[in-house]
Amino acid sequence: MNKKVTIEKKVLSENDRLAAEIRQKLSKRKILTLNLVSSPGSGKTSLLEKTLITLKDKLKMVLIAGDVQTENDADRLKKAGGKIVRPIVTGGACHLDAKMVGNVLNGLNIDDVDVLFIENVGNLVCPSSYDLGEDKKVVLISTTEGDDKPLKYPSMFRRSSVMVINKIDLLGLSDFDPEKVKANALQINGNLKIFELSCRSGVGLDVWCNWLVEAATAKK
Amino acid sequence: MNKKVTIEKKVLSENDRLAAEIRQKLSKRKILTLNLVSSPGSGKTSLLEKTLITLKDKLKMVLIAGDVQTENDADRLKKAGGKIVRPIVTGGACHLDAKMVGNVLNGLNIDDVDVLFIENVGNLVCPSSYDLGEDKKVVLISTTEGDDKPLKYPSMFRRSSVMVINKIDLLGLSDFDPEKVKANALQINGNLKIFELSCRSGVGLDVWCNWLVEAATAKK
Repeated sequence: MNKKVTIEKKVLSENDRLAAEIRQKLSKRKILTLNLVSSPGSGKTSLLEKTLITLKDKLKMVLIAGDVQTENDADRLKKAGGKIVRPIVTGGACHLDAKMVGNVLNGLNIDDVDVLFIENVGNLVCPSSYDLGEDKKVVLISTTEGDDKPLKYPSMFRRSSVMVINKIDLLGLSDFDPEKVKANALQINGNLKIFELSCRSGVGLDVWCNWLVEAATAKK
Repeated sequence: MNKKVTIEKKVLSENDRLAAEIRQKLSKRKILTLNLVSSPGSGKTSLLEKTLITLKDKLKMVLIAGDVQTENDADRLKKAGGKIVRPIVTGGACHLDAKMVGNVLNGLNIDDVDVLFIENVGNLVCPSSYDLGEDKKVVLISTTEGDDKPLKYPSMFRRSSVMVINKIDLLGLSDFDPEKVKANALQINGNLKIFELSCRSGVGLDVWCNWLVEAATAKK
């Protein structure tokens, strides 16, 4: 197994090199870049759909949507008004890597873009190891998933800057305690910025969108 | 990357060898072995808790509970009456492998056991590649996750024999369409045996438990 570990280290260090190139390219253009990560079905695509609709006149947004198979997410984002949406189908791989993202960016004109969203593969483990050149990882957790997830999957919460608790319209229908999930997440990473919202009911989306505009403006 | 692929193939073929040993050991003792896989938070532990309580006088059950960090799931299963419960903390790894399971089994007396449940790490991608010597993979999906998941994560549904749709008490509170998820899953794997239930309300658990008893009896 040592040989496997050595190879993995090499793959990760090559990934870090490519991610640094991407970060430099995006920083030069003052583009806020967010890497959205979560379990399958926490609501990454739903959050991006709502964000696109709400901020379409305020921000120029580009979206890269990763999936193991299908371009379903990219199709949904185009329907929600996304003008520049690019799918990445990993064909089995459990995460996006910097090479995949770099290849997509090479084919795009991003000169006047404000925000780049990268929607990662739904997986709360593997994508935590792969830097994509983003400013921040945004980890989503939904109220139907259990409030102990930050403790059980600590790496993702440690490496994220923002946590979005989605589906708060379903609070009370499970044993999920939002105070407990926040305490668990902050125990892993005391610097997490936390949002609580529901993509379905719309509650809390304004706070998220205001923060996005501010963060994009601060990059300029 | 070719070198990485070669190493991965070697790791998988060594895993298959160990899984075959485990399968032989369990078959000799006529133990029904189920490998439970799903996204984080779909309800693998909840389903096992309910199963332990319902079938405690009918079946002798052993449980192996895998997690990236913490022994939370194993602790829950012990509280639910699990007499032989063993945790595996992978320490970062995104799946269980046959070596981890084999090591646990080597320390157990399983001579008069009816059913072995292996609760995998919450991850809808990577555990699909690792045979653990089970009779069947049981994939869970909850009604809050989106009905297109079988199409987006096809490998797991292709390699599973059983699909459990959990949290049907929450139907109607999202856009999840149970008929659509069944059609999508059967499109990937026409042989899937499907259960619909709610661990919270208890609906449908009797059908699942009856099937388990029958399947365990059929192994004898």
